[in-house]
Amino acid sequence: MEQPLVIFTPSGKRGRFAVGTPVLDAARALGVDLDSVCGGRGICSKCQITPAYGEFPKHGLTADENALSQWNAVEERYKSKRGLQPGRRLGCQAKIMGDVVIDVPPESQVHRQVVRKRAELRDIVMNPSIRLYYVEVDQPDMQDPSGDLERLQKALKEQWDLPASDADLRILAKLQTTLRKGEWKITCAMHRTGADSKPAMLEIWPGFYEGTLYGLAVDLGSTTIAAHLCNLTSGEVIASGGIMNPQIRFGEDLMSRVSYSMMNPDGAEQMTRAVREAMNALFSEIAAEAKIDKSLIMDSVFVCNPVMHHLFLGIDPYELGQAPFALATSNALSLKAAELGLDLHPEARTYILPCIAGHVGADAAAVTLSETPNLSDDLVLLVDVGTNAEIQLGNRERLLACSSPTGPAFEGAQISSGQRAAPGAIEHVRINPVSKEPRFQVIGSDLWSDEAGFAEAIAVSGITGICGSGIIEIVAEMRIAGLLDSHGLIGGPEQTGSQRSFADGRTFSYLVWDASDTGGPRITVTNRDIREIQMAKAALYSGARLLMDKFGVDKVDRVVLAGAFGAHISPLHAMVLGMIPDCPLEKVTSAGNAAGTGARIALLNTESRREIEALVGEIHKVETAIEPRFQEHFVNASDIPNAVEPFPNLAAIVALPELDFNADSRNDASGGGGRRRRRRG
Amino acid sequence: MEQPLVIFTPSGKRGRFAVGTPVLDAARALGVDLDSVCGGRGICSKCQITPAYGEFPKHGLTADENALSQWNAVEERYKSKRGLQPGRRLGCQAKIMGDVVIDVPPESQVHRQVVRKRAELRDIVMNPSIRLYYVEVDQPDMQDPSGDLERLQKALKEQWDLPASDADLRILAKLQTTLRKGEWKITCAMHRTGADSKPAMLEIWPGFYEGTLYGLAVDLGSTTIAAHLCNLTSGEVIASGGIMNPQIRFGEDLMSRVSYSMMNPDGAEQMTRAVREAMNALFSEIAAEAKIDKSLIMDSVFVCNPVMHHLFLGIDPYELGQAPFALATSNALSLKAAELGLDLHPEARTYILPCIAGHVGADAAAVTLSETPNLSDDLVLLVDVGTNAEIQLGNRERLLACSSPTGPAFEGAQISSGQRAAPGAIEHVRINPVSKEPRFQVIGSDLWSDEAGFAEAIAVSGITGICGSGIIEIVAEMRIAGLLDSHGLIGGPEQTGSQRSFADGRTFSYLVWDASDTGGPRITVTNRDIREIQMAKAALYSGARLLMDKFGVDKVDRVVLAGAFGAHISPLHAMVLGMIPDCPLEKVTSAGNAAGTGARIALLNTESRREIEALVGEIHKVETAIEPRFQEHFVNASDIPNAVEPFPNLAAIVALPELDFNADSRNDASGGGGRRRRRRG
Repeated sequence: MEQPLVIFTPSGKRGRFAVGTPVLDAARALGVDLDSVCGGRGICSKCQITPAYGEFPKHGLTADENALSQWNAVEERYKSKRGLQPGRRLGCQAKIMGDVVIDVPPESQVHRQVVRKRAELRDIVMNPSIRLYYVEVDQPDMQDPSGDLERLQKALKEQWDLPASDADLRILAKLQTTLRKGEWKITCAMHRTGADSKPAMLEIWPGFYEGTLYGLAVDLGSTTIAAHLCNLTSGEVIASGGIMNPQIRFGEDLMSRVSYSMMNPDGAEQMTRAVREAMNALFSEIAAEAKIDKSLIMDSVFVCNPVMHHLFLGIDPYELGQAPFALATSNALSLKAAELGLDLHPEARTYILPCIAGHVGADAAAVTLSETPNLSDDLVLLVDVGTNAEIQLGNRERLLACSSPTGPAFEGAQISSGQRAAPGAIEHVRINPVSKEPRFQVIGSDLWSDEAGFAEAIAVSGITGICGSGIIEIVAEMRIAGLLDSHGLIGGPEQTGSQRSFADGRTFSYLVWDASDTGGPRITVTNRDIREIQMAKAALYSGARLLMDKFGVDKVDRVVLAGAFGAHISPLHAMVLGMIPDCPLEKVTSAGNAAGTGARIALLNTESRREIEALVGEIHKVETAIEPRFQEHFVNASDIPNAVEPFPNLAAIVALPELDFNADSRNDASGGGGRRRRRRG
Repeated sequence: MEQPLVIFTPSGKRGRFAVGTPVLDAARALGVDLDSVCGGRGICSKCQITPAYGEFPKHGLTADENALSQWNAVEERYKSKRGLQPGRRLGCQAKIMGDVVIDVPPESQVHRQVVRKRAELRDIVMNPSIRLYYVEVDQPDMQDPSGDLERLQKALKEQWDLPASDADLRILAKLQTTLRKGEWKITCAMHRTGADSKPAMLEIWPGFYEGTLYGLAVDLGSTTIAAHLCNLTSGEVIASGGIMNPQIRFGEDLMSRVSYSMMNPDGAEQMTRAVREAMNALFSEIAAEAKIDKSLIMDSVFVCNPVMHHLFLGIDPYELGQAPFALATSNALSLKAAELGLDLHPEARTYILPCIAGHVGADAAAVTLSETPNLSDDLVLLVDVGTNAEIQLGNRERLLACSSPTGPAFEGAQISSGQRAAPGAIEHVRINPVSKEPRFQVIGSDLWSDEAGFAEAIAVSGITGICGSGIIEIVAEMRIAGLLDSHGLIGGPEQTGSQRSFADGRTFSYLVWDASDTGGPRITVTNRDIREIQMAKAALYSGARLLMDKFGVDKVDRVVLAGAFGAHISPLHAMVLGMIPDCPLEKVTSAGNAAGTGARIALLNTESRREIEALVGEIHKVETAIEPRFQEHFVNASDIPNAVEPFPNLAAIVALPELDFNADSRNDASGGGGRRRRRRG
């Protein structure tokens, strides 16, 4: 008689097995992804499955309730102690007696998928570098003497096919008591970076350890440090938190921190200490919030820009402050967290993604890992806007990257009424093209300034300034409304027909909000502000354009804006400004905190680390500082939008008025626009 | 025309090379062992060679002085700066112009041999795990950005064929300044455990580093810690030193230290701390003596017995105090010295040889490595006598090992007049078989006690007691002189005809030296002392005999006595005592501190580590505690010599009187010899 047929779902894997084969063994033989920590001893319950009975004509199969062995005492004990969903069986206990379809629910899969919200992206497949293994170890035998560690290694090899692992002195010091306390049963946390690599034993527990291990995905930014605490089995984010980067007190932006280290003998050390201390504080806070023991955090992944990278590692960033911008190392780093002064599990590991180049850091690599432009059929332009814009352009054929010095204007710095994105900041603006009157939204409220209840809604924060995304919108809206010409000159009241344009020194400014009569701020956009934005957007556009040149294309299929800032800017306004090349507006999307997501992917899937390491090696790096064409593009890109590129997609949506306020006022004494004249390409 | 023929001596390797080929390149092409740290740049002078000119009829070769290119400016500069022996050339500068014989002097060989004094043993071939590599590194290039470390790794690969190495944060923090200070030339100390293994970068120096690296070979004994400081290039021992093991204050012997750790909650920790502190003090002292910077000590090898091993590593030796004597680990360990609290170079490495079994430690493995019984055609019995005797028996076919609990008697402990081997201790004794009068030598003088000037020679130390080797000789001499019967009973004055035999409680004692009238000691051998020695020697003999049973032999071809004690005992007296099986006396040799030598071999030759690791796995371990035959042998082995084995080699040299003092005094009131009656096998 033929052996019973077993079909596993959702994998569809099938095979025939002898009557009496445990479902777990059948799954392993077929390579079905069915979890087990205890190795089939009915302890861990990770191998839960749901048998399906009935007719399966497609498979030519009929399965009845006798297709699996009877519910047994081990399952009954487990169910009464911990509960088991109706219909579930333990795969190590249920034996195959006849044809059967067996479903492996997601939580029983080792390589379960962590679903990401954006449909265009791959889900994260769980494959953490640290996992638990339960083994039963031979007792010592005087006839055949061997060390306890060697017998444990033998058990790991025989029961889990794990190569002999290193064990450090911490483990060795407690190995003998742990084995005896667990009566020769032990659970080991093993760290492994690849299928061929030698594992390291990070921790041991007597008997079967029922706990969970955790990991941290950390985005170390110049301004803020954000961390996600993840369950290393489910992939779930169980707590998140952020903290200001305390290095701010040594310098707001990256270059001022590099300068601080150059001017102060122990400047770099101070900054290293500060950021590490802040991280420890943040991690304690997150662990407390999640109500977990910090020593259960055994893995961590960090992404950051090159200067943060060096300072975090304790490397003086001096060389990053000057050409040729040489990194000490661009490779990915696998370290012990303790080497970085991090107070997690004493053997906790740290992985730092590779840097792409001196200006394109591990954060950019994390964006690549999250957004996978290398898997895209479309040609995608990936922009992470910060003090430096990190720009990638590519598809599955090849990938280019560069960094462009946009400066801090997009973050609200060096803007007269600029501020960080915080309650009270104007973040969205619309200007009526006829009346030239603005209306706006302020962070902390969904109401527009011309809606009822606005004043009450913002009573606490007040209106304090304009954040980065607000600046972009307001400049673009000024251009649309005819308050600003294509060269970036604000028209005077005669030219614009609005008293909101007012003479402000040699140029004109635009009044957005005036609360000065009640002691509040007077929020304006000056022509100097416009010039700052012009410089920033020209840098961004030129970087993108340079990559397009290198790629040999004139347009891109889609644009992805990464980073917190990217999540808040309006694609239409960005295009009006000429920040990004022309593109169908629905093809301009936001990736949110893609760097943080990339860190989380690297934390949860150890193979993704090898993937990004290989990919970074293949990315073609373009150094804008030495590309003559970058300068050329830059000069040509300061017009709003830039004057070199036609914007057909934009033009189909909004008609930008043709204006040249400087020409109007050429004979004016105050005509300062000449400084902004650009050579045309 | 045929290309010039080059013959290298002493290897005899030969080949033809294009005119103009540097000698170093030719040597490398032929696999000739010619050193170079600078990679042929005329900096390091490690590749010195001596060309030979003249007729070489055997090789069909005539070499004239034009066979090599002219002495050049690089050689001249080197010679004037540092000197060069007459006739020497730099192999990287001298180019082959015609047929030539080239001698590679020992100091130009990487794998030079360190000659050992005993002809029967292999020389040590230099192959240290840490070596220096000089490289020239590409400067950073903005067109093709890469990290400084990655360019250094590329240089090491291209110039030395070294796989990419790990660099720790310490190196990374100083890599950029070091590279720039050395103008992109750098010397790296690389640690490598095998040809396939990934090297680790331990240290970097700007430019060409001219210094030497050092290593420590340490024999960590229960009583003393002895260390040799070795030059890792030449293999030379440049300083040695020893210190008492401070753990003695927690217990004289191993078992009392295990007890201490059982009785005191932090007992093991105290002992770990004590031994590590003592080592640091010892290493500082040795480095000071050698006038070297301690931070140039980059490698270290330790050998020790299992209890010392665990305490040094910070593992509670509790399990070693009771059956089944399970080690936490028996594997060899590769650690950072800093993990053991050792204050050497911050990245210094430590290697600890594997343990053979719970009672047969890394020290025994080191003896094996030094004495290579596994390469012997003869069947060799290898005995390392200490508180436990570690015994190995084997030849190139197979190797057995066991440990036998001899107790501390052989070290002078538990002997009424016993003492450690130190000035004042009686170490050699002869008893006149007619007069029964003893004469002896005392540590600190070469004179015998009946020679002129003896009293003056020992005036400082005095005569203070009997050390281990003295005890063995005195007991054996008493047996030869008829003062002691074969059951171990001292005869009374009537039986021996000597007043040196005197009643001492229920038995008799023998008076060796009496200075009590001048306030000095009265040195005697009591019948209890004899019994202690009988127990110890029976244990040793039984272990050896058990291995012989297992091997299926009745005699051995040779006996090697290892350890400091083994170096001092007289083979004849050991055989009279029945400590070791009968064997031609000239085949009983001393190996000196073979464990220390084994440590030095492992330090200087990294492949020997793999060799002993593999060998230890193949050694058949015999646990005496569970072998019924061990008890049987033990019972039968207490007679002097033991009553089971004929001693033909011994009998040919000395006739032992047949005596049974107990039979003589069977009716005596004081006849306590009955306690010593043994069952005969």
